Amino acid sequence: MTGRATAEAPANIAFIKYWGAHDLGRGVPLNTSVSMTLDRCVSTCTVETRPAKSDDPGSADEVFLAESDGLQPAPEAFARRVLNHLDRLRCLVDDDVAFRVATKNSFPAAAGMASSASGFAALTLATTRALGLDPSRHELSVLARRSGSGSAARSVLGGYVELPGGPHEEDVYARPLASAEDWELRDVVAVVATEPKSVSSLEGHRRVRSSPYFRERLALLPGRLDAVRQAIEGRDFHLLGPVVEEEGIDLHLVAMSAIPPIFYWTPGTIETLDGVRKLRRDGVEAYSTMDAGPNVHVICRPADEAQVAERLTELASVQRVIRDGVGSGPRLCEDHLL
Amino acid sequence: MTGRATAEAPANIAFIKYWGAHDLGRGVPLNTSVSMTLDRCVSTCTVETRPAKSDDPGSADEVFLAESDGLQPAPEAFARRVLNHLDRLRCLVDDDVAFRVATKNSFPAAAGMASSASGFAALTLATTRALGLDPSRHELSVLARRSGSGSAARSVLGGYVELPGGPHEEDVYARPLASAEDWELRDVVAVVATEPKSVSSLEGHRRVRSSPYFRERLALLPGRLDAVRQAIEGRDFHLLGPVVEEEGIDLHLVAMSAIPPIFYWTPGTIETLDGVRKLRRDGVEAYSTMDAGPNVHVICRPADEAQVAERLTELASVQRVIRDGVGSGPRLCEDHLL
Repeated sequence: MTGRATAEAPANIAFIKYWGAHDLGRGVPLNTSVSMTLDRCVSTCTVETRPAKSDDPGSADEVFLAESDGLQPAPEAFARRVLNHLDRLRCLVDDDVAFRVATKNSFPAAAGMASSASGFAALTLATTRALGLDPSRHELSVLARRSGSGSAARSVLGGYVELPGGPHEEDVYARPLASAEDWELRDVVAVVATEPKSVSSLEGHRRVRSSPYFRERLALLPGRLDAVRQAIEGRDFHLLGPVVEEEGIDLHLVAMSAIPPIFYWTPGTIETLDGVRKLRRDGVEAYSTMDAGPNVHVICRPADEAQVAERLTELASVQRVIRDGVGSGPRLCEDHLL
Repeated sequence: MTGRATAEAPANIAFIKYWGAHDLGRGVPLNTSVSMTLDRCVSTCTVETRPAKSDDPGSADEVFLAESDGLQPAPEAFARRVLNHLDRLRCLVDDDVAFRVATKNSFPAAAGMASSASGFAALTLATTRALGLDPSRHELSVLARRSGSGSAARSVLGGYVELPGGPHEEDVYARPLASAEDWELRDVVAVVATEPKSVSSLEGHRRVRSSPYFRERLALLPGRLDAVRQAIEGRDFHLLGPVVEEEGIDLHLVAMSAIPPIFYWTPGTIETLDGVRKLRRDGVEAYSTMDAGPNVHVICRPADEAQVAERLTELASVQRVIRDGVGSGPRLCEDHLL
């Protein structure tokens, strides 16, 4: 069986964070999360299938990064996660196939943006298509999640997306809350650090459950979720923003109180969080949020995007600013990386 | 009735923080706190009493700062707190007296160190002596606390000091845990910000009770208190340090989750906290703690003080380093400021 497909899938920024897992290996979160799918920050992935020896088809799999100067072997840790996911997807068909995979991101890996959501969503879509399958978005979400990247499950849909938490794995797939056309928001990312973070998101999901505040955080989330859903339903940015900012800080409060504690913030994080509060005092409605890392995503309306980007650029510790907005989700591409 | 007395009282650094009050006006904390009294960071205060008109004796009170170039009228907000405290102390005697007060700190006010603990402890001791009273340390602790600065209640004793929380006001006075001679520790203060903080400690005490994590923090404290008491009893720095560092961070976690949130950290705070963790990775046992502000106190043993001070000085955002140690508490002085 021979096939080839290329898919592009976007990153997303969570308004309500997935933080702490029921089942880390299968990407089953403890809590419901909500995100905005991005537009320009995307991963592109080409997958080729070919017949393989039946005794160990996975041994012939190959994983490349598509660099500007050609294909490069993927770094081992990254390749390992991709190969593990290919093993899962191989089980969808009866034939013995081997995969060749090439992947790239529209945003520099060193920009400190999470690429696992977009990467595994693109890999899942491209692989299933290369296998001749046509999964629904629901099925695609489940398959992408089983990569272990719970946020990849959200990147299969555009616009504003909700992913229920566990424990029932079969319920954990992305649901649309609103489309990209329904509400145009922007995400201006202040990149303040580009080194790999000291503690991976996976280790974070594991460790935050030890925070003495984790249980109370879970108790707070239904209220925040209601506010975010209502804000998206009513396009109410004034309702959305403060909840998003509180939630972004909260992720770090439980991380810093975990045992042992996890510290993701850098001096630049603090400068940027302060800069966002100053922006608001100057009448520009913008709100910060962060993933499990030091960079700050600043959510604003389109009319304020230029000013937000300008002010963030002026901050001494901001290395670069990435301007993105809400996007329409993954798509198949005609141009292949292999 | 005419009298004059001068007292010197030290600042202190809390290992377990007073954070949240039963009765803010009387300095009655919700929780038990433990501190190390400092040695070199002191306030000196001279108080003169003279007969006053019986209808409004307080109207003749005067408050000065003793500057290098002579007495200066105290800034209004500071003078107001001093005058309020003098009103309380005036009630200790039957005579109608007016006060003249001059005060100074050994550490620059702009160093961002809390001066209310040392200042109100010195004021209370000098005033009672000028009134011809000789309160016990127990009584002095209660009187100093009623200034509204709960931590002033701890500064009346040297060494390591515990202050019980409320609700029973009569129990809230300083108890000695160990003397300065019992255990020689050092406090190297990394001064990273000198502007007045955006939210006062008093407002902080008020607001932190709104944090959803505040109740759980109170539930955690008995365990931390036991560890700190045991560490002081057994001179066990390895037991003390991690608890002190966790507690210093915790004060800020509940502040940042208060409604509305309080942010005291600056980029320099983060750089210094990170620097302390690096020091430990390099084998130097040092632990951070912070009050309700951005500066970082680094607790270490005498043998490591020089290296700690050197490493902190090298940090880009550290404006100055103040080296202090455990001290023996307040004393009366022969040299007067008035």
